[in-house]
Amino acid sequence: PRLHVSLEERRSSCKHPIASRLFDLMLAKKSNLCVAADLTSLDDVITLAESIGPKIVVLKIHVDILEDFSLTKIMQLKEVARAHEFLLMEDRKFADIANTVQQQFHGGVYRISEWADLITAHPLPGPEMITHMFGDSSSDSRRTCGCVLVLEMSTKNALTNEDYAKEAAKWGLIASDVVTGFVGQSAPQSDFPGWVQFTPGVNSSSVSGDSKGQQYCSPAKAVLERGADIIIVGRGLIKSPDVVATAETYRSEGWAALTQRITNP
Amino acid sequence: PRLHVSLEERRSSCKHPIASRLFDLMLAKKSNLCVAADLTSLDDVITLAESIGPKIVVLKIHVDILEDFSLTKIMQLKEVARAHEFLLMEDRKFADIANTVQQQFHGGVYRISEWADLITAHPLPGPEMITHMFGDSSSDSRRTCGCVLVLEMSTKNALTNEDYAKEAAKWGLIASDVVTGFVGQSAPQSDFPGWVQFTPGVNSSSVSGDSKGQQYCSPAKAVLERGADIIIVGRGLIKSPDVVATAETYRSEGWAALTQRITNP
Repeated sequence: PRLHVSLEERRSSCKHPIASRLFDLMLAKKSNLCVAADLTSLDDVITLAESIGPKIVVLKIHVDILEDFSLTKIMQLKEVARAHEFLLMEDRKFADIANTVQQQFHGGVYRISEWADLITAHPLPGPEMITHMFGDSSSDSRRTCGCVLVLEMSTKNALTNEDYAKEAAKWGLIASDVVTGFVGQSAPQSDFPGWVQFTPGVNSSSVSGDSKGQQYCSPAKAVLERGADIIIVGRGLIKSPDVVATAETYRSEGWAALTQRITNP
Repeated sequence: PRLHVSLEERRSSCKHPIASRLFDLMLAKKSNLCVAADLTSLDDVITLAESIGPKIVVLKIHVDILEDFSLTKIMQLKEVARAHEFLLMEDRKFADIANTVQQQFHGGVYRISEWADLITAHPLPGPEMITHMFGDSSSDSRRTCGCVLVLEMSTKNALTNEDYAKEAAKWGLIASDVVTGFVGQSAPQSDFPGWVQFTPGVNSSSVSGDSKGQQYCSPAKAVLERGADIIIVGRGLIKSPDVVATAETYRSEGWAALTQRITNP
């Protein structure tokens, strides 16, 4: 039901402010590009974000691979995100009991809830983690940060099979006050237009994956065959000699595929 | 096959040095107690570890909930672990593609591989993550740190069902050069005596769980009915007014149950 609906119409059905914001950004920037900034220096992430900021709608990071993390620096990155209008996604892949996840989200050295617009979580521990991960019902974070559920992974022989993804998608829809979308490799049968599908492992190169189980897919295939609304590009971009030109290529290919899917159902 | 085998015999079938070491500690300390030190101050974790150190064989932490983390302090905790002879387990629950997990394990602010004896991982991303998480085959970490696979979770409606656990257990056995055991709520049918089962959610109180999906189980039930070799006690101990006395109670109950299971099959 979601795949051929206009972004404007989908925006109007959003139940989470971060999802509405994401649709606004996509429409304004004509972009459905998320870059996975898997660098080990936060200074380098900031430099990358400053250069490709205008092309992207989401920058995805792994805070726990950054050698030089500090709250001051992450707030600098947040400023770049504000200036260039993209969302900051922490790809933490929470996967513990709710009592622990709450502390991992709000506390520790990283204080993820103070800067992340989007946070990934595995539905593995059960539905109670999803509803409780941000804290109690009065927690501000429930509206300032959107949960992105990992329904399917892109790796070989991942245990996120059809039954797994189906059950978790059901929970995500019930928890639509906190869930803004999902990570997937295919569109769930009963998905909700106000949700956003993120698809990782997007890479235009001719290689099929890395040597450690990751499998790649082109932007067009991700959008047209797998239901991606947002394409996540990592090594295909950050390792390229001209990241701005590469970002523009992925932006235009991804956006063309999304427009085609919506207008030619 | 594992449940009624003596610890001495199981020790001799270990394929990972950390598993052998754990059996040695259990036999020497007459303890199968792991304490989940879910405190938000590393100073407090160190104080706790100094007091209960003689009673436990493993101390489990979540490094990313510690407000005052520093490499210097974690090395102090490591010293306490050496002095009192217990292993340090980082309950990171890795659940990403291998390329990312390697960086999360070795890098960032935490440098987990420099201090953790045991590390938890979800098999969700597939078998390649397990074999590649420590780095290439020459990486020292493959022998200095043992992977503990989370086959089953203790939360309500967790998606770690029987098929999931069975498939993942199979992968774990294939990767026995890095896997030292598993987290589970039941003994897998074809488990290997050189593996250690860790069972969380152990609590002697009369309450059945927390309000966020966690479910509790007594030490005797964990060992006799669910196949636990090591019981993981968290809030039942760290929130008690006398942690040393409580640790002794859990140690003696857990050990008595394990001895009973082995000697009265």
